[in-house]
Amino acid sequence: MKCGLSLDVRDIDETTINIDPIQVGGRLTADAMKAVIAYGDGYSVCDNCRKPNRLDMIKSPPIDAFHRDLAAFVNMDEARVVPGARRAFQAVAGTYIEKGDPVLLTALSHYTEFLSVEAYGGVPLEIQKSSENIITADAAGEKIDSVKREYGRPPKLLYVDHFDYQFGNEHEVKGIIKVAKQNDIPVLYNGAYTVGIMPVDGRDLGADFVVGSAHKSMASPAPSGVIAVTKERAEEVFRTTKAQADLTKRTFGIKEVEMMGCTLMGVTLVGMMASFPHVRERVKHWDCHLSNGRMIVDALLAIDGTTVKSEYPRKHSLTRIDTTGSFDTVARTHKKRGFFLTSALKEKGIAGTIPGATKVWKFNTYGMTDAQARYTAKAFQDIALQNGLIVLR
Amino acid sequence: MKCGLSLDVRDIDETTINIDPIQVGGRLTADAMKAVIAYGDGYSVCDNCRKPNRLDMIKSPPIDAFHRDLAAFVNMDEARVVPGARRAFQAVAGTYIEKGDPVLLTALSHYTEFLSVEAYGGVPLEIQKSSENIITADAAGEKIDSVKREYGRPPKLLYVDHFDYQFGNEHEVKGIIKVAKQNDIPVLYNGAYTVGIMPVDGRDLGADFVVGSAHKSMASPAPSGVIAVTKERAEEVFRTTKAQADLTKRTFGIKEVEMMGCTLMGVTLVGMMASFPHVRERVKHWDCHLSNGRMIVDALLAIDGTTVKSEYPRKHSLTRIDTTGSFDTVARTHKKRGFFLTSALKEKGIAGTIPGATKVWKFNTYGMTDAQARYTAKAFQDIALQNGLIVLR
Repeated sequence: MKCGLSLDVRDIDETTINIDPIQVGGRLTADAMKAVIAYGDGYSVCDNCRKPNRLDMIKSPPIDAFHRDLAAFVNMDEARVVPGARRAFQAVAGTYIEKGDPVLLTALSHYTEFLSVEAYGGVPLEIQKSSENIITADAAGEKIDSVKREYGRPPKLLYVDHFDYQFGNEHEVKGIIKVAKQNDIPVLYNGAYTVGIMPVDGRDLGADFVVGSAHKSMASPAPSGVIAVTKERAEEVFRTTKAQADLTKRTFGIKEVEMMGCTLMGVTLVGMMASFPHVRERVKHWDCHLSNGRMIVDALLAIDGTTVKSEYPRKHSLTRIDTTGSFDTVARTHKKRGFFLTSALKEKGIAGTIPGATKVWKFNTYGMTDAQARYTAKAFQDIALQNGLIVLR
Repeated sequence: MKCGLSLDVRDIDETTINIDPIQVGGRLTADAMKAVIAYGDGYSVCDNCRKPNRLDMIKSPPIDAFHRDLAAFVNMDEARVVPGARRAFQAVAGTYIEKGDPVLLTALSHYTEFLSVEAYGGVPLEIQKSSENIITADAAGEKIDSVKREYGRPPKLLYVDHFDYQFGNEHEVKGIIKVAKQNDIPVLYNGAYTVGIMPVDGRDLGADFVVGSAHKSMASPAPSGVIAVTKERAEEVFRTTKAQADLTKRTFGIKEVEMMGCTLMGVTLVGMMASFPHVRERVKHWDCHLSNGRMIVDALLAIDGTTVKSEYPRKHSLTRIDTTGSFDTVARTHKKRGFFLTSALKEKGIAGTIPGATKVWKFNTYGMTDAQARYTAKAFQDIALQNGLIVLR
């Protein structure tokens, strides 16, 4: 079936158990699907935009209340929606970074964080990861000291991912923020893998900026995300335009410079809004999602030769697994080579792994029902057994 | 009916003739509606993202071919999709503007153009408009000369709107670009009100950058837009990351700095893609849309006391009308005051004007059928007659 000349219908999340590392937290809720249908047209949320004409102040649909709810959800003072977490990084970078400024990221930071620093001429510097692939507060402290020695001043900004995209490991965010604060460094908490799937309390963490990805973890259409900040930082990163035109003497009201005015004027925002009550509820059940994920990881680890690259026991549903000693030994002689695994999973209705990958690969079990999790765990072991691997029970 | 706890279903474009100034070109096509339903989930276009992992290189769905089609559509060399035209302004500003640089806009430029200049510390300077609210090539030349005298160098960049948002007037883009080129100033052609509704030939115009708004004029969900550039400018504004991490020595492949990597990872992009064949076709019929618009403007002008603020005869479907001498005289004594007009239009199934506005207001007739245009023209005159105004036929 086609929707448009060249677009096949996409039904991966309707017809399979999807374990794609980045997709599972962004599947729409039923309410978001309805909202997407109703608000698909371009500027669909602008029907009742009145002076002073700003997206976050529109009352119908209740976008203003949603913004307050969003800030409260991560326990911060103010929030704005943005076209993806990366645009929040950009807004913060644009506010603070000047050419040549040292900026701290980590050895596990996402590429978009690097891009945001590069875009404003900052010098991205990494905090070392431990041999267990954890970013510690001690390592942050050491790097801050080394930057101070080299640059004669502390880093201008520090970005830290609560859970990273490579391993899904938990890092010492609270301790890192504490040491950053002792050096007066504003901290951006990157919650791309937390906000919307587990509880996040930005005030308790001490973050200046809490960034979330709505298309990754808040059951929303892309591109969408959130930036929530403290009152103090709101005046900086949400500063309003000071421009005045030289001839017409026009000024531009309360439009926010780093937001480029309004951000998500339609389907993306209503998707976030419609999913939000469900998202707010689902973060309370993170432990269930985590235990399902752990069961699947344990099922994989019971396949002789398999190891886990991520920290263990798992604290996140995103896991990096190493099947070089198990599934990859099959791939070496299988007529489908590495594709046998994707193919076998597909036959069992499981999708989202990289075709051909049988060495080190990632998957994410978030959002499964208990039954789906048991089924997936058994599916991996059945495929192992069918291909002559040993499963230790 | 509700879609989600607090979201009413939006059906303004299904149940009324919408004449909202900014919404009419962004109504989805039926194919886009189907695509939006199929691709609502977060990272929905990333199922088949393979190395080198960049949105514009994905082959299934055919995003790579779509990018080539987009560039060809406006006769430029390369194109990227962006979260709205404003994000294209930001990318161009980020590439060229340094603190204190003079940048030319016009006396009718959109606020987002000012914000993009302000964000990078540029000095936004306006080209004067004529008494008829037209930006001429002569005025551009004069302003360039005055900037050269004051700053000792030409403006770093020039933005020009083919049709402006205030009057929907056509400006001397080709002449303005010519004079800018004579001074080696790169030009951003803002086609928010042209790309997707009328033919645009960027090469013929001589533009360095052609920017379009997909949620405004390409029948797409928000936020979405396009930036198309010459081969030479592509190397600048689509430059890839040069960052290298200090500890891990990671580099980030061919991710583009100003794009922040990938841009529209789901519903917004497929909306653009599904509508595109229809959009490519509809620009050929701009003259029909224009003549419908002219008929409605003439019907309004036939109401005694009405004048048009926009240039006349109209060259665009967006028009600024002055009914201070007609509908506003009714409002002065009507029990609904200024709201009588919106209310009367609503009763006739016409929506999209600002509630209470009876003096100077804007409307856009784009996308109407001939029958809807005749109906709308008659509706305005009927409301006039019902309220004791004189209609000159």
